[in-house]
Amino acid sequence: MNIKVIAFDADDTLWVNEPYFQETERKFCELLEDYLPHHTVSQELFKTEIGNLGLYGYGVKGFMLSMIETALRVSENTLNVEVLEKSLQYGKELLEKPIELLDGVEEVLQALKGKYQLVVATKGDLLDQERKLMKSGLENYFHHIEIMSDKQQRDYQKLLKHLDIAPDEFLMLGNSLKSDVLPVLEIGGHAIHIPYHTTWAHEKIEHHVEHKNFRHVQTIRDVLPFLL
Amino acid sequence: MNIKVIAFDADDTLWVNEPYFQETERKFCELLEDYLPHHTVSQELFKTEIGNLGLYGYGVKGFMLSMIETALRVSENTLNVEVLEKSLQYGKELLEKPIELLDGVEEVLQALKGKYQLVVATKGDLLDQERKLMKSGLENYFHHIEIMSDKQQRDYQKLLKHLDIAPDEFLMLGNSLKSDVLPVLEIGGHAIHIPYHTTWAHEKIEHHVEHKNFRHVQTIRDVLPFLL
Repeated sequence: MNIKVIAFDADDTLWVNEPYFQETERKFCELLEDYLPHHTVSQELFKTEIGNLGLYGYGVKGFMLSMIETALRVSENTLNVEVLEKSLQYGKELLEKPIELLDGVEEVLQALKGKYQLVVATKGDLLDQERKLMKSGLENYFHHIEIMSDKQQRDYQKLLKHLDIAPDEFLMLGNSLKSDVLPVLEIGGHAIHIPYHTTWAHEKIEHHVEHKNFRHVQTIRDVLPFLL
Repeated sequence: MNIKVIAFDADDTLWVNEPYFQETERKFCELLEDYLPHHTVSQELFKTEIGNLGLYGYGVKGFMLSMIETALRVSENTLNVEVLEKSLQYGKELLEKPIELLDGVEEVLQALKGKYQLVVATKGDLLDQERKLMKSGLENYFHHIEIMSDKQQRDYQKLLKHLDIAPDEFLMLGNSLKSDVLPVLEIGGHAIHIPYHTTWAHEKIEHHVEHKNFRHVQTIRDVLPFLL
């Protein structure tokens, strides 16, 4: 392998993220339980999020706007405005969650530093992700953070152009087969899948991947034998 | 001058932006005129925006969330929820405004292309700015777009590290003395100020700049004599 740059997904690869979203969603559904059952609100929220994804992109701010929109819709405009205040508050709390590093992350970065150029490649809101990186204490391991508006083939092509490297000099590590693995393999890059115990419905795919540039590991520590 | 990279601010430097925000704000204030005079709502919105800037950063999504929060606050929770639906709608319309290029922009990019590496360096939401760049038809003039969470000295230092260039190889062009000029001069870069007829209150400063690395011009076309 001729890898020069290793890009790490952030949320649920470096640190805990999806459980915090799920906790916020659960509290949001409770706010609306006078109108609809928890499960139905959850479905409505997901529908709103997917409907807005093209316009808002990924990240907490879009999620907050989708909570507001969902609350207005499911209550058919008979809403107690306190529900909206609470929704804003829950969103702000989500933006200020502490960072909980996943096991083995720092050890792996320490071992790879200096041997490769390390970057963070993540979706979401720029300021939010920068803040999380700063709070994580991992900032010094990375050359920089790349915020991607999506993680499809064309987004990775832009990233490679930006990094001025060839596809086979690029390795992506992450927990989403759909976002961190398949598009990278398609454009000729390398990818390692490190599963996380819970995944947002939008990122879930059923897919068995076999590819010469692909590895599946159980934990982030397991990437080291391939790279050292 | 030893300039290698020229970074262009986007909003109100390449295309019209602030007038669209002002139009949205005017419509938002009209929605709330049963509660408070237009001018007071406008002040309250500004206060909310500044209060949220550290958490949300710049961009339309944060602006939308601040409209919602302001509406809830000024109505003391007696709000007609239609006001909130309209606020969301106005925000979505703002995200879908057509791109109106400023006079001379394309001509200048055409003249500079191939002679320097051209990039866009802008605050705001990544997806929104990427969409605007695509709609502008200017995408091919630029090596890439850099979204910055803020435009203070440390943000420009990160940008230079990311671009792997020395400060005096960097020139920033933009309409905000506060964001596009002063921090760049402070870190040893070059800057040209191209004023726009209207500026968001948060970006306004009274400042007379004199510096060997600084130029003030009337229109974007006036930068060419310094650069060709």
